[in-house]
Amino acid sequence: MKIISGGVCAAKGFRANGVHCGIRKNHSKKDLALIISDVPANTAAVYTTNLVKGAPLLVTKNNIANGKAQAVICNSGNANTCNANGIEIAEAMCNLVAQKTAVSAADVVVASTGVIGQPLDITPIADGMDALVSGLSYDGSTTAAEAIMTTDLVRKEIAVEFTVGGKICHIGSIAKGSGMIHPNMATMLVFITTDAAISTAMLQKALSTDIQNTFNMLSVDGDTSTNDMVTVLANGLAGNPEICQEGEDFTIFMEALNTITVSLCRSIAGDGEGATKLLECIATGADDQKTAKICAKSVICSSLLKAAMFGADANWGRVLCAIGYSGANVDVSKIGVSFRSAKGEIQVCANGAGVPFSEEKAKDILLEKEIDILITLGDGPFGASAWGCDLTYDYVKINGDYRT
Amino acid sequence: MKIISGGVCAAKGFRANGVHCGIRKNHSKKDLALIISDVPANTAAVYTTNLVKGAPLLVTKNNIANGKAQAVICNSGNANTCNANGIEIAEAMCNLVAQKTAVSAADVVVASTGVIGQPLDITPIADGMDALVSGLSYDGSTTAAEAIMTTDLVRKEIAVEFTVGGKICHIGSIAKGSGMIHPNMATMLVFITTDAAISTAMLQKALSTDIQNTFNMLSVDGDTSTNDMVTVLANGLAGNPEICQEGEDFTIFMEALNTITVSLCRSIAGDGEGATKLLECIATGADDQKTAKICAKSVICSSLLKAAMFGADANWGRVLCAIGYSGANVDVSKIGVSFRSAKGEIQVCANGAGVPFSEEKAKDILLEKEIDILITLGDGPFGASAWGCDLTYDYVKINGDYRT
Repeated sequence: MKIISGGVCAAKGFRANGVHCGIRKNHSKKDLALIISDVPANTAAVYTTNLVKGAPLLVTKNNIANGKAQAVICNSGNANTCNANGIEIAEAMCNLVAQKTAVSAADVVVASTGVIGQPLDITPIADGMDALVSGLSYDGSTTAAEAIMTTDLVRKEIAVEFTVGGKICHIGSIAKGSGMIHPNMATMLVFITTDAAISTAMLQKALSTDIQNTFNMLSVDGDTSTNDMVTVLANGLAGNPEICQEGEDFTIFMEALNTITVSLCRSIAGDGEGATKLLECIATGADDQKTAKICAKSVICSSLLKAAMFGADANWGRVLCAIGYSGANVDVSKIGVSFRSAKGEIQVCANGAGVPFSEEKAKDILLEKEIDILITLGDGPFGASAWGCDLTYDYVKINGDYRT
Repeated sequence: MKIISGGVCAAKGFRANGVHCGIRKNHSKKDLALIISDVPANTAAVYTTNLVKGAPLLVTKNNIANGKAQAVICNSGNANTCNANGIEIAEAMCNLVAQKTAVSAADVVVASTGVIGQPLDITPIADGMDALVSGLSYDGSTTAAEAIMTTDLVRKEIAVEFTVGGKICHIGSIAKGSGMIHPNMATMLVFITTDAAISTAMLQKALSTDIQNTFNMLSVDGDTSTNDMVTVLANGLAGNPEICQEGEDFTIFMEALNTITVSLCRSIAGDGEGATKLLECIATGADDQKTAKICAKSVICSSLLKAAMFGADANWGRVLCAIGYSGANVDVSKIGVSFRSAKGEIQVCANGAGVPFSEEKAKDILLEKEIDILITLGDGPFGASAWGCDLTYDYVKINGDYRT
């Protein structure tokens, strides 16, 4: 398996494009993206567990109930959520795709991201469709990735190549963060494409299994969005024998998918609103995996620890504190904590109490852009990772007046 | 019932003092407090549910297991938590009280607050005891309140006068916030005194009942501290017939206690680390109280909503979002949201969707220092309040390098 370029178009038979249609006031920011498969694709998805669900999500759920989709349309700048006409507008977006392409309206995944509770005007979208469709290209991933960005500073694309059943397959993806990120059984907007042949059931199984250890272990700010959605479209154009059950092929597919999702978790966390650092908390030595996951995620969610990391302060007491209130059943007297980065690794706590360490070396390690927080919980065989970012002045600035 | 001055010394027979003994480097910051009752007092307490518990908390729990205490000693600048010699030091603090006063070491409530995981040196405390004890006074609440402050900017004292069984009684208190505030079945450091006669069992019942609607509905940053503790010492010197069961006297006592605890919640939230605004979320119309509490607390804990309040931005979509992911079982299509302050009240959402409103008026209301976020969940009879504060640059600044 190898990482390749091409993003969401790395998989055979997927075209994409992104344009500025006018939902956003800033003309230099693209706000409308389209991804189309040459043929209908088996489709799986997971959605936010927030009770307040964006209208596009409801329309998508309905459209892919038959396990098939052929296109993804997504706007940024407005979430089309908590609006009286939300469903109507989301359906209108699907109809626009059908009018301008060969895709049926019922085979469209529709998504929106941006401010909640302001009606979404269909006019700029309708006006932008010709440019959007005419610009579709087999190397258009980058413009689509740009068009779904909100407060993201970095475009998020990743693709891999791997072999299943003697055939070269690809998985490609684009994603957006970067605030209201605390997925819970679902996630932010992630659109994944693959040319691997895989049944809808196995595709859904792969996705639902994978996110438990990837997107559900990611937090920027503890707020679970109303519009979170991950979809995977598998169009089968790689020509491999369709994956219809567990086995070697499914395992390879899962590994490839996991490479994509872990990479996106890191991208989204590292580009969290206001973030200066990517944090990964790696818990090991747990007696069961649930315990490892609860501890890792609690540490990564702690506002106090996040602020300490911003300040490059080795305040490990906050790591213990976060484990302590996580609800996990751990023996505090066995906990160890180390910090690690490209500058080295330093142990700061053993058996639940501090150990002497060089503040200077710790500062040196913590001044890096990517920090691992290593926690050992005991002698058990289970571990887990969680991803997040530091809490900074800019997070407050970005969110102090987001709507204007 | 009326609010009076005198803080923790408003209740008859309680002396207090606070001094700088040298735990903190800054000589202008007091760091050691003592409260003593003239006679042994019935004592109740609640503690943090964090698995990582400060050593002082464990020693206190043991000391008041018999329902009695006569003194409270508390230092700031060091939490005496996650240290190998924590219990030994906490016990040494109790012994110092016993050596210098008439109080038995087993009747001392001991508490510490500050950085976790750095050994607490007993020397400055021992050296400071003479000044601490000789300065004890029946109007010494203010110095004690100052000595337990950490990042608090405002001293927290409140007292009330009320009548039970024909006798004038008092409840007084001091407290400290202001980070790592997300009490869960317990709270930050709060020391309450009363001269009302009340059995230990009824005192514990009053406290345990009250905190469910007060301290447990308070959040500054979502981090539950390792050293949270609320204690109430009731020395009976008011001379009322001892409250030994539910009834009118207990109800009056509960009301007085609730006046104290709500006032402290507001003080602690309004003085949260970096806060510029006190937020109160008032949920009404719920079908049961649990639902109202879950919704109010989820809103008050949302980093995004907190940042929006800092920016005086009427971003009500974040209120709906926080209710949506709270886990409460609500009908989203019935939710209404209004913002209220001294400048007026404005409705921004009805039936789960936006209503047209004046952004100018909303800004005017949200620029005030105390903001009520009013959420209506439906037609049910239950409601709840939660208290918090905005998320600001200064929160990040304070916590980016707390230890140095």
